[in-house]
Amino acid sequence: MVCTVEIYEKPKLNNPVLIEGLPGIGFVANIATLHLIHELKAKLFAEMHSSAFQDFAITADQGKTRHPVNEFYYYKGRDDERDLILLYGNTQALTTMGQYELCGRTLDVAEELGCNYIITLGGLRRDEKITTPKLYCAASDKEALKDALNMGASILGGQIFGVAGLLVALGKLRGFKGFCLLAETPGFYPDVQAAHTALKPICNMLRLNVSLDRLEVAAEETRKILESFGLLETPLEERRKEESEYRWFV
Amino acid sequence: MVCTVEIYEKPKLNNPVLIEGLPGIGFVANIATLHLIHELKAKLFAEMHSSAFQDFAITADQGKTRHPVNEFYYYKGRDDERDLILLYGNTQALTTMGQYELCGRTLDVAEELGCNYIITLGGLRRDEKITTPKLYCAASDKEALKDALNMGASILGGQIFGVAGLLVALGKLRGFKGFCLLAETPGFYPDVQAAHTALKPICNMLRLNVSLDRLEVAAEETRKILESFGLLETPLEERRKEESEYRWFV
Amino acid sequence: MVCTVEIYEKPKLNNPVLIEGLPGIGFVANIATLHLIHELKAKLFAEMHSSAFQDFAITADQGKTRHPVNEFYYYKGRDDERDLILLYGNTQALTTMGQYELCGRTLDVAEELGCNYIITLGGLRRDEKITTPKLYCAASDKEALKDALNMGASILGGQIFGVAGLLVALGKLRGFKGFCLLAETPGFYPDVQAAHTALKPICNMLRLNVSLDRLEVAAEETRKILESFGLLETPLEERRKEESEYRWFV
Amino acid sequence: MVCTVEIYEKPKLNNPVLIEGLPGIGFVANIATLHLIHELKAKLFAEMHSSAFQDFAITADQGKTRHPVNEFYYYKGRDDERDLILLYGNTQALTTMGQYELCGRTLDVAEELGCNYIITLGGLRRDEKITTPKLYCAASDKEALKDALNMGASILGGQIFGVAGLLVALGKLRGFKGFCLLAETPGFYPDVQAAHTALKPICNMLRLNVSLDRLEVAAEETRKILESFGLLETPLEERRKEESEYRWFV
Repeated sequence: MVCTVEIYEKPKLNNPVLIEGLPGIGFVANIATLHLIHELKAKLFAEMHSSAFQDFAITADQGKTRHPVNEFYYYKGRDDERDLILLYGNTQALTTMGQYELCGRTLDVAEELGCNYIITLGGLRRDEKITTPKLYCAASDKEALKDALNMGASILGGQIFGVAGLLVALGKLRGFKGFCLLAETPGFYPDVQAAHTALKPICNMLRLNVSLDRLEVAAEETRKILESFGLLETPLEERRKEESEYRWFV
Repeated sequence: MVCTVEIYEKPKLNNPVLIEGLPGIGFVANIATLHLIHELKAKLFAEMHSSAFQDFAITADQGKTRHPVNEFYYYKGRDDERDLILLYGNTQALTTMGQYELCGRTLDVAEELGCNYIITLGGLRRDEKITTPKLYCAASDKEALKDALNMGASILGGQIFGVAGLLVALGKLRGFKGFCLLAETPGFYPDVQAAHTALKPICNMLRLNVSLDRLEVAAEETRKILESFGLLETPLEERRKEESEYRWFV
Repeated sequence: MVCTVEIYEKPKLNNPVLIEGLPGIGFVANIATLHLIHELKAKLFAEMHSSAFQDFAITADQGKTRHPVNEFYYYKGRDDERDLILLYGNTQALTTMGQYELCGRTLDVAEELGCNYIITLGGLRRDEKITTPKLYCAASDKEALKDALNMGASILGGQIFGVAGLLVALGKLRGFKGFCLLAETPGFYPDVQAAHTALKPICNMLRLNVSLDRLEVAAEETRKILESFGLLETPLEERRKEESEYRWFV
Repeated sequence: MVCTVEIYEKPKLNNPVLIEGLPGIGFVANIATLHLIHELKAKLFAEMHSSAFQDFAITADQGKTRHPVNEFYYYKGRDDERDLILLYGNTQALTTMGQYELCGRTLDVAEELGCNYIITLGGLRRDEKITTPKLYCAASDKEALKDALNMGASILGGQIFGVAGLLVALGKLRGFKGFCLLAETPGFYPDVQAAHTALKPICNMLRLNVSLDRLEVAAEETRKILESFGLLETPLEERRKEESEYRWFV
């Protein structure tokens, strides 16, 4: 595998928090992070490419090609807002080895910018109908767990697949603290309600001055991306299979 | 993966265009590029081998073995014809990582010869009957998109799998411009009509003085290669499965 | 693949024996080795991580994340007890290449500490009901085979998959002696009886002053780990399939 | 992948021919090469190990472990016999990349010993009943093809999977000449008749003073190895599937 990071700018940040926002169950992290990028006008400062991404081009608006990519944005907090590094992208890696490398490079970037706290978001798939999504969490240590429990999250049992789990677990090995916050979702479709449930307490914790009123805009953009992939037309059953094969929406 | 390029000759070219012609849906690119090699008497100057190619030998005419290979040809344009680099071969790589590496090496070769424009060809599979194949395109940028739209192509939505998509998308990251041009095809068989539809406007754009009268010769040669692989005897349903597994004709 | 060993302490050991205790059929090695770590208060001195491990985080007690990991413990024998290196962990590697690398690194660690004898444990799956599990063995050479036969084990025919087999076979190439000892088990569940059957003669051979009375504690802990993975809820048939795919419990 | 060759002795050979004898369809090459090793008392001079081999230990006679391995033997011809390098083993690599690396290392060994001619053997699976197996061939060039046709072989169409095909095809790229000789076989079982058919003209061509009377001994030994793998008990249908998955007997 070859995973490379191209850095356009090296921002000076004050004790930033890394928020992971790659595609996953219900696109919870994807929507939430895109919304933060929109609202905070976060700035793109690095791109990450991996030969473990799918081998295709994606067509974007107006006939332009896009490649599978992960992007890093930063935000310098105003007033008492926390500085942020945002990891956003249109894919995770297709192999476990690719995922390990992706997380390793991400931690390199975070470390270099003085970050020592990681928040990963995600969806927790539920087959039953969800009226109000509940939050679940797992953390690197007691202190970070307390941060997550303070948001009203319950302790999670089981595994957390993909970058959402791996980034916290591998980060812990390198001295990062942090937690993974999952909102209940039926999955398969961009779930704006689950994204809202997860993002709201994060904004409080980091004292981010962000309204969630326009969250639907980020969800709509996410839907459009999926549509351009032809993914929303795929029948559910097949999609389920694709999920496990392609790690595309995990 | 190990992907190596053996260079036999380093041609001096004037702002050449790279045309990709590897096996893919309907063998559109494969036929079109082979025809250009035939008609322009393009010269082989490099071979590319990858450990991500299938691990077999192919038998060619008269009992000789052939290995899976990608070849580079060049053509120095006469009069106002554009100089060309032609990528031709009997396979794509079997893994996404192999495909990324293949495209990387191809861009290295192109870059070294002063090329900054890439045209990839392909088929767009349609289940319905096709009377006159329509053309679709996606491009690296507005300018290249205009080039493709000028050919009467429509804007493509969705993904472009394999080298046809990846080469334009990854090329863009390294400063190449270019587009992917897909002709509608039922796929599965070498489709001379789709190849004709895609190649004709390319010849116009690049002012290539090439008749398409003998295009059937290249299609027939492509059919013979497939036959020697035993591929044309495989029932359609199985072939469909093989396509996704083997990336052999994508 | 990238497999790294982080060494916290370099113990001085006298001709130590390496005991392999990774998850496998019936969790025989896993239970037995955990019990030795408990009873002997063996000390953690190194951790091994591989990008061929599953890409997820595991939740441990009280909401904390754990990563897939292999750990090395040591024990300095008292009186005439043999010095030990214990390899314990919650996973094997997911690919054959990852397994080869894992075994290579393990042999590096063992070699550096002056070890030249390897004992791997495991389960031998039987479909019929097992009243008293029998022991089977395979060894690097005549001498080590005699050690194993002295325990009342019968000679094994067939293959020994995973680290249990590979470590002895690859060790032999590097001058290690040793054997693999398998106890009959229905598999799929942590099998305390099989672990007892395998561990008892090992303790005798190495003159380890260890009671097996609390072996159930290690089995219970192993069950809890599996439960936290959600694995014990998986229907048997599916688990069987997962075994071959995931090499998780081999 | 990591593929290493350990060389025990560097024999001085005079223009030796490399004969490939790894497990494949009908075990034709495996039986034939083992017979040559037996009869000519060929000497082991190198071993090749790859992390693309299966991750298991095999139990050999009397409880000893064996690892997946490829071995190199040499034979210095007497009188006008040709000098030989014999590649024998109990497996091919499990991945295409592993196969490419295996062939690359094999060619390195051959080149270093002054070899420039390769003969690979194999079976050509036929579903109908075979009374007298016919021979088929494919070669690097006209000259080598003539050698093979002189044996009464017909020209082969289609692909030659695995090391038998790849070694000739990749060898050709590095200046080796040679051919692949396939004997018709139902496959799946060590086929002494097919091995006889392929080996006889090879002995003539290389003027090897070898009786084929005891060929059944090599076939029986091959059967025993398969039996110890438990492979001969596997129902045929499943074996067919395993073949494509495991590349074990190709």
